[in-house]
Amino acid sequence: MVIYMSDKLSSPSIFIGVQGNGLISFGSGQPDLPPPQEIFDAMKNFKAFGYGLIQGQQTLRYALSKECGDADENNFVVTNGASEALDLTFRSICKPKDKILIHGPYYYSYDPMLKFNHIEPVITETVKGKIQMDDFEQKIHDCKAILINSPSNPTGRIQEIKTLKEIEKICKDLGKVIISDEVYKDLIYERENYMLSGDHIVTINSFSKTFSMCGFRVGYLYSNDKNIVKNAIDIKTHASMNTNILAQEMAVEALKVPKTFVEKQRKIWENRRDIIYEGLCDIGLDLWKPEGAFYVFPKVKNPRKTVWELYKKHKVITYIGDWFGDPTRIRLSYALTIDKIEEGLKRIKKYLNSG
Amino acid sequence: MVIYMSDKLSSPSIFIGVQGNGLISFGSGQPDLPPPQEIFDAMKNFKAFGYGLIQGQQTLRYALSKECGDADENNFVVTNGASEALDLTFRSICKPKDKILIHGPYYYSYDPMLKFNHIEPVITETVKGKIQMDDFEQKIHDCKAILINSPSNPTGRIQEIKTLKEIEKICKDLGKVIISDEVYKDLIYERENYMLSGDHIVTINSFSKTFSMCGFRVGYLYSNDKNIVKNAIDIKTHASMNTNILAQEMAVEALKVPKTFVEKQRKIWENRRDIIYEGLCDIGLDLWKPEGAFYVFPKVKNPRKTVWELYKKHKVITYIGDWFGDPTRIRLSYALTIDKIEEGLKRIKKYLNSG
Repeated sequence: MVIYMSDKLSSPSIFIGVQGNGLISFGSGQPDLPPPQEIFDAMKNFKAFGYGLIQGQQTLRYALSKECGDADENNFVVTNGASEALDLTFRSICKPKDKILIHGPYYYSYDPMLKFNHIEPVITETVKGKIQMDDFEQKIHDCKAILINSPSNPTGRIQEIKTLKEIEKICKDLGKVIISDEVYKDLIYERENYMLSGDHIVTINSFSKTFSMCGFRVGYLYSNDKNIVKNAIDIKTHASMNTNILAQEMAVEALKVPKTFVEKQRKIWENRRDIIYEGLCDIGLDLWKPEGAFYVFPKVKNPRKTVWELYKKHKVITYIGDWFGDPTRIRLSYALTIDKIEEGLKRIKKYLNSG
Repeated sequence: MVIYMSDKLSSPSIFIGVQGNGLISFGSGQPDLPPPQEIFDAMKNFKAFGYGLIQGQQTLRYALSKECGDADENNFVVTNGASEALDLTFRSICKPKDKILIHGPYYYSYDPMLKFNHIEPVITETVKGKIQMDDFEQKIHDCKAILINSPSNPTGRIQEIKTLKEIEKICKDLGKVIISDEVYKDLIYERENYMLSGDHIVTINSFSKTFSMCGFRVGYLYSNDKNIVKNAIDIKTHASMNTNILAQEMAVEALKVPKTFVEKQRKIWENRRDIIYEGLCDIGLDLWKPEGAFYVFPKVKNPRKTVWELYKKHKVITYIGDWFGDPTRIRLSYALTIDKIEEGLKRIKKYLNSG
């Protein structure tokens, strides 16, 4: 195993490409379960090569509109993953020095993405991963928008439907935009997803988590706010043009797959969730029960040293909470087989007991 | 034929998707010649689905490094077409209110892309499409970088090697970055391409024009400036992640195709160039002889009315020069068969003679 990690643990990218015998990685947020076979069938006889529509192929937008409660297909923009959908949204609604409210702990891309768009992130800290309405109400006034991520990466927690409805109402009254990053919407173990809705909501989603299509980069934004959609298309026209035309065909095929596919996957994730959650509780760690996504976010003493030593001494990759705005915790992804989860838990237990 | 073009001719996007019987489109800058068959073979047995490297797959960067005079593969970033390569470059080197020098007439995306990155475009006007060193030297001082596009869309003109070498030297002395958009480098009819080189050059290229892979969106940036490469990767990590993994495999296959493929295509383009250039001269239009790319940019009286009436009365699509920073001209792409070029020329002649 090549170790090319700096002492500084500067960002998750230091673990990219790190592989080797006996390595257990709780690092990456990438599903290990394969995509539906049908997406590969889209490649057969594919012969197109010209530019596609900047907004996204009509067939895909139509299929997506049917997934989103009979929405208008003209209100979708197909993007290079949820990442580009978010970036386009920020660029569409903000000018330099505008502020956007995010709830912490947060996905590690939010903070840098806002900053290189010259937008100031404002943080509302959650309690056990749940947004606190008092703090939210105080801070939203100064901000152009709030970015909600439920289920959350890294906490695995969902926001209560009551909370989401209150936020919908307050933002409507104040004329604030809600950007709802729902990439884990099909991985909720406690209830159905509550899709935020209204005139100035931007829903962000992707084919990466539900259909394991990470490498093909298909995501989308959906909004009834025509200005945001128009701005996003205008920017994409110049900044990247159409999303890969074949990947869009693959996404169309993914949406045709029976819903049992998604249901089966969720059961696998839920089982893994139970094993890792109970395993970490047994070890004595302080953590919140994940309600969605595939992450646990336990508190540990000296997280930086823990992550470093787990990696160097026990070949276990975890991520420091610092990257997600919480320096007291570490993140573990459970996107790996139960065998590996159990082996990883053993090593973590051994390490912590040796300390 | 559905006509949904406004009187305002607001942007080229009004022509996207306009099709119909008997329509002759000199509009789009998209090759009609097919890509090499080999790129489609990359789809056979393709089973990967996980994230790729943000910087681009190693195999593709290695193949590209061999194309660029034995460059270092670590100095490449594979992107969603040349568009994203340009956007990442602007974001990597500029902060709001910085200035970038561009030569006019210019590709229609440059101005909006700079503006939504909060960068101020400064224009150096060319004479017959050629950069004037006096004006360049005067204006470069205030700017962070110059963006060169040779061969140029829309003029079809190339910059003299002497000019390019002078610009290299001046920019080196002043510490200015040169962004060299060379997407038409394989479509030069007068000489070999002169690839700008130095410590702070960013070369932009793509598989869209040389290999007709527009819809698959594979481009790249290449620079010996490690800071620019690092910044571009950092931004891409959050703003779009890896470029589509299958499209990158297709690009690897494209680079394996014998160079005779490119040579044959160039001869076809050159023949079309001769036909449209001579045809427009015969009609009596004032235009520069294209030396590369696949555009002609003739002067016409009342370009807006001409473009509108050619479309409405004669089913011929052309673009107004306004979109490229020159309101006295119109742009015609010759990315269409000789039959169609000749039919289009007939209609243009008829229209102009009727006026």
